[in-house]
Amino acid sequence: MEECWTYSRAGVDRRALSELHEIARLLVGRRPRILMGPGGYAGIVKEKGQLIALHIDGVGTKVLLAKTKEDFKTIGIDAVAMNVNDIICVGARPVAVVDYITLSRPMPDIVEAILSGVIKACRESGAELVGGETAILPDLFASEQAVDVAAACIGLVSKRMLLPKPLKPGDILVGLPSNGLHANGFSLVRRLLLREKSYNLDDFVGVLGRKLRDELMRPTRIYVKQILGLIREGLRPKAIAHITGGGFLKCRRIAGKGISLHFDSLPEPPTIFKLIMNEGNISFEEMYSTFNMGVGMVLVFAPRIAESAVSWLRKRTDVWVVGRVEKGSGIYVNGRLIGK
Amino acid sequence: MEECWTYSRAGVDRRALSELHEIARLLVGRRPRILMGPGGYAGIVKEKGQLIALHIDGVGTKVLLAKTKEDFKTIGIDAVAMNVNDIICVGARPVAVVDYITLSRPMPDIVEAILSGVIKACRESGAELVGGETAILPDLFASEQAVDVAAACIGLVSKRMLLPKPLKPGDILVGLPSNGLHANGFSLVRRLLLREKSYNLDDFVGVLGRKLRDELMRPTRIYVKQILGLIREGLRPKAIAHITGGGFLKCRRIAGKGISLHFDSLPEPPTIFKLIMNEGNISFEEMYSTFNMGVGMVLVFAPRIAESAVSWLRKRTDVWVVGRVEKGSGIYVNGRLIGK
Repeated sequence: MEECWTYSRAGVDRRALSELHEIARLLVGRRPRILMGPGGYAGIVKEKGQLIALHIDGVGTKVLLAKTKEDFKTIGIDAVAMNVNDIICVGARPVAVVDYITLSRPMPDIVEAILSGVIKACRESGAELVGGETAILPDLFASEQAVDVAAACIGLVSKRMLLPKPLKPGDILVGLPSNGLHANGFSLVRRLLLREKSYNLDDFVGVLGRKLRDELMRPTRIYVKQILGLIREGLRPKAIAHITGGGFLKCRRIAGKGISLHFDSLPEPPTIFKLIMNEGNISFEEMYSTFNMGVGMVLVFAPRIAESAVSWLRKRTDVWVVGRVEKGSGIYVNGRLIGK
Repeated sequence: MEECWTYSRAGVDRRALSELHEIARLLVGRRPRILMGPGGYAGIVKEKGQLIALHIDGVGTKVLLAKTKEDFKTIGIDAVAMNVNDIICVGARPVAVVDYITLSRPMPDIVEAILSGVIKACRESGAELVGGETAILPDLFASEQAVDVAAACIGLVSKRMLLPKPLKPGDILVGLPSNGLHANGFSLVRRLLLREKSYNLDDFVGVLGRKLRDELMRPTRIYVKQILGLIREGLRPKAIAHITGGGFLKCRRIAGKGISLHFDSLPEPPTIFKLIMNEGNISFEEMYSTFNMGVGMVLVFAPRIAESAVSWLRKRTDVWVVGRVEKGSGIYVNGRLIGK
């Protein structure tokens, strides 16, 4: 029987990674000026009564698939999207961004394409690109074409707006659609589809109705405007989870003690996820703890405003009621435990 | 005759690099909320009357030399130092930091060592480590041991404190000592000393009085406390230049139109710089436009406070009056034009 693929087999051991992420949290400890420290969606520091959120994130190995100018523009969008979608999860409004691009040699066309995406995504998020670092790092990368792209973002938040709020049984889980894989799980996708299954990025894939490249290189959707819009309408979510690396396990950040999240009416996953699942003989649990499965953002609403929030959102985007909050612990999808 | 080494021959073409850096400045253009945009020591955004500085920077290929825990701790210090020393150049007080570490595989000991350096440097700068990203990026790096380390930093600044102020002929250039190479010029050093001249990092080098590794892995000195101390004393510099990539060319950022900077009493460069210069048959101009040459920070003072500032600094550190501001244009070292 064919071996099951996992993210770990693709070189990214989730457990080892979360142990790495734990190191900073332990080393930093509690500090009076830190309102939110390492391990959340963004750090928050308190300075003269003002709360400033700061976050940094990269696009991972999605960039290894980029070839055309349009691809690199997507990478730039992704770098900002990964930051602003995270920072909005703590209730902060994105304000300014800096980019970090490292290359093995000067490739001005690639840098320009990335930056055009960075700026497009900044504008869409209401943030300003105020600087960045572009560094040539000879001998670091495996390929002459290699690029790594990250960004950092600051946001402002008032104490009243700070998220997540504590969840209660009966709260409603609402999902917003992703635009494909976004920028997560690419080490698995590359090694499984491109290396083991010999897909070619420029193959037209019948079930997808498009070239594999066009599917994989879709830019990460940015949710900032819709979420700020909700807040302005007085329809503030109690918590927001950006579904990125770790898939639905990311929701552990918002669950809190004594609370379990039950996703029992998620939409049918888009075809690309089914293709990956079938080709890699990947388990249901592994899929939902690696990929977004078509849901890029999970919002939690108190029951009394859930209906108004969903109908406000429905005028602007696809939106689904995807589950509910209960007592207990763990993240469940269709009754199956994804993670504690 | 032996060919002269340049930074460009080592894979880092300064002109190409500054063209890359120019791209963001041109793409962003003027924006009402941006007080300082791409191309300076830090970006500054204006939000509800508050000025927030944001910066991002990495340690470059110095990390390729790191082997021991102590080395990686140094890399962590460097990542923060490169940021806080830059952000203080715009008059901003560092407040919070996030780190960005990418690895080819999980290496918890290395991550912990880097973070211990990051936190040490944060404490020394009065900033809090509030988060970060540690990402496993399989297939990106040339070596299984490879790591890239960067950080981003925010700082607060009042409009009154904003630097640089316009310089005037007669202003005094003051230098603070570096702690060796800091984190710049390492692609040249690696390719010249280690590859071409076959030095071994663990060789004891007589003229240095220590192992080459111990010389090269000295952590970047952090100047934040001393500069904030000066400001508190009412001895505010008119401009500050952190001497990093591009060496003394970095001073172009503070010179302004119609102003030339004349460094005519710089201290004797530390031995490591002479060793590099001799081994690579490197020109004087190339050395001063690649390395810090023993001076990590240049402060510019109005003549009326220069003496008090120098004597305040002298109680705390080595300090030199290294030159003066004149009419004209260009950066001069010992009468030789380094750059326009």
